[in-house]
Amino acid sequence: MPAKKPDYNKLALALHKKLKGKLSIESKGKLKTKTDWSTMYTPGVGAVSSHLAKHPKQAREYTMKRNTVAVVSDGSAVLGLGDIGAIASLPVMEGKAAIFKEMADVDAVPIVLDTKEPEEIIRIVKAIAPGFGGINLEDISAPKCFEIEERLKAELDIPVMHDDQHGTAIVVLAGLINASKVVQKKMTSMKVVVVGAGAAGRAVALLLHLAGVQEIIVVDSKGAIYEGRPGLEGYKRKLAEITNPTNLVGDVLTACEGADVIVGVSGPGTIAPAHIERMSHQPIVFALANPIPEIMPEDAKRAGAYVVATGRSDFPNQINNALAFPGIFRGALDKGVRMITDEMKLEAAKKIAGLIKKPTPDSIIPPVMTPGLVKAVASAIKLPKK
Amino acid sequence: MPAKKPDYNKLALALHKKLKGKLSIESKGKLKTKTDWSTMYTPGVGAVSSHLAKHPKQAREYTMKRNTVAVVSDGSAVLGLGDIGAIASLPVMEGKAAIFKEMADVDAVPIVLDTKEPEEIIRIVKAIAPGFGGINLEDISAPKCFEIEERLKAELDIPVMHDDQHGTAIVVLAGLINASKVVQKKMTSMKVVVVGAGAAGRAVALLLHLAGVQEIIVVDSKGAIYEGRPGLEGYKRKLAEITNPTNLVGDVLTACEGADVIVGVSGPGTIAPAHIERMSHQPIVFALANPIPEIMPEDAKRAGAYVVATGRSDFPNQINNALAFPGIFRGALDKGVRMITDEMKLEAAKKIAGLIKKPTPDSIIPPVMTPGLVKAVASAIKLPKK
Repeated sequence: MPAKKPDYNKLALALHKKLKGKLSIESKGKLKTKTDWSTMYTPGVGAVSSHLAKHPKQAREYTMKRNTVAVVSDGSAVLGLGDIGAIASLPVMEGKAAIFKEMADVDAVPIVLDTKEPEEIIRIVKAIAPGFGGINLEDISAPKCFEIEERLKAELDIPVMHDDQHGTAIVVLAGLINASKVVQKKMTSMKVVVVGAGAAGRAVALLLHLAGVQEIIVVDSKGAIYEGRPGLEGYKRKLAEITNPTNLVGDVLTACEGADVIVGVSGPGTIAPAHIERMSHQPIVFALANPIPEIMPEDAKRAGAYVVATGRSDFPNQINNALAFPGIFRGALDKGVRMITDEMKLEAAKKIAGLIKKPTPDSIIPPVMTPGLVKAVASAIKLPKK
Repeated sequence: MPAKKPDYNKLALALHKKLKGKLSIESKGKLKTKTDWSTMYTPGVGAVSSHLAKHPKQAREYTMKRNTVAVVSDGSAVLGLGDIGAIASLPVMEGKAAIFKEMADVDAVPIVLDTKEPEEIIRIVKAIAPGFGGINLEDISAPKCFEIEERLKAELDIPVMHDDQHGTAIVVLAGLINASKVVQKKMTSMKVVVVGAGAAGRAVALLLHLAGVQEIIVVDSKGAIYEGRPGLEGYKRKLAEITNPTNLVGDVLTACEGADVIVGVSGPGTIAPAHIERMSHQPIVFALANPIPEIMPEDAKRAGAYVVATGRSDFPNQINNALAFPGIFRGALDKGVRMITDEMKLEAAKKIAGLIKKPTPDSIIPPVMTPGLVKAVASAIKLPKK
């Protein structure tokens, strides 16, 4: 009989009730002596404020802006739970902040918003930005997340990243780099089917395209996205322009004909054994829905999958955003970059992939606690050459 | 030759440059084992989020909301420096957060806003409120600070306090309770002149009035505020209704005739020896402008002042907001009160005053590091009786 799996739900509720908040905000300086008080606070702090009034760009040298990121959510697309609102999203944002600290020594502040209106979210994030060195957008629903991120990237002078998009895409690309080595196919020549056209699906398709993958087919609930599909609009129309070069029409089953890779960023049950059976030899299956994957690894293997990855920690090959975001922001804060560019994302994926020296079907992606991971990812963030 | 005074400005600049931010955001839970990851974050955290989606009021039991306060400023009235903006106000807000933690174990997050528009500030604070258990407004200029605080108090279900108003008023009242004992006068029968009608001046007048002081005269740059003064409007008109019962017309010198107490919440030079010489026997002088008081203590004493207090730590009797705000919010978070009421402020002042068993001219107010201070102030915060 296999060991009984721990009931993480029950354990998590108990842990959260015990901790009553997962974060503690500590003073780095003491307040014991008169000198402490007079330098940490008044009157001495007035000199620091006066200095910054004259030289606001030096905030990075004198304040928390140097190392602090806001983790901002409106609670509209939390994990697989959907639109559960600000308060209910708070434990997730606290968890994210805990990961930021433990992995990358980044100070992260959860900010959960009691509004779901994109213009309002943009306005609020811009208004609170002065105290932060970066903005990690989190669990904001598509399609509004695209506009919110684009606008904030353009209008703020600190890096802004919607992790559900780019964190996922970076780690998928990292996994695919190594999976392609395992199956000895050239990544750029592979046919990739992406099941799901939400925040993650779009970002995965865009980043794989940037990485040179020629044939990507994104499938939403109405089937493959192709140029000219009736009713296609907004970001999906733009996706159609760079994907599905043969203008294939059909469902997932049709799209899978001869495919080398299928990436599920959708929900349980959207990848079936029949899909995998239609794929090319040594199929690569990333089933990333959490906590229940599009297809369970054992079923995928039985249908012929050669490399399987999921979003879960209890199977091999966990495609986990935590592989990317701590290092991305660590690097961004250290280098003082204004923006996380596509080049940085591609480079970060390569760095993550590079941590696996000899990829095997069960080891295409490093575990999240891999020594040197954050440093490797951070090294992908470089100031643009003048 | 007296010991040379340390150059706190220089020391503060050096300390801030060394610390690069005075706050550190720590994870209370570890992220070492698979169980840590699965309970601090996914999948277990999903159960906590689902639970809170159904029972949002339990956020206090499961999240940082229980112990976290936002310290919000628009940088429009920072210390004595004025409107220096968000970035330049950040070191002050960080210092405040450090005091919150060191004194009262309150987790406080500086939020500095890149807007000065009252409606916008109200909207932003309301939007970010779900993650916080309280809002400490700070260094926001008068008169907008009054409307911002009133509106937020009315529209949010967590306590909101503008510390420049109420923290100051509470500590002034505490000092006056003990000063009245020192001079053996009944506080309610004393004549009190308040020099300055900004955020602090208004709050001091209102709280002393609530405490039963019958004769309060508030003086602004145009002289004593009285009912019917030409051009009087807004909050000053309301102040006139409860102060200056004899409708005295004139400047500070006129107002000081026979006064028992003068409270400066204005700026250097606004209290002169001649003012003190006009006062009643054993004058009480609170010169609270920072870092340079309205009159220096030695000059006040020479003019006849019997009890002198300032806002500075290098003279006896420091009227310091840090005596009040950490305990106020400690109590508010622990009791889960929705609002800081006038009764709580009066009670907090009594608790602070009560820490001095035998008041003397040089000891009317406890030092900020007094053992039991935070607990005493917190005990003033009680849920209203049903």
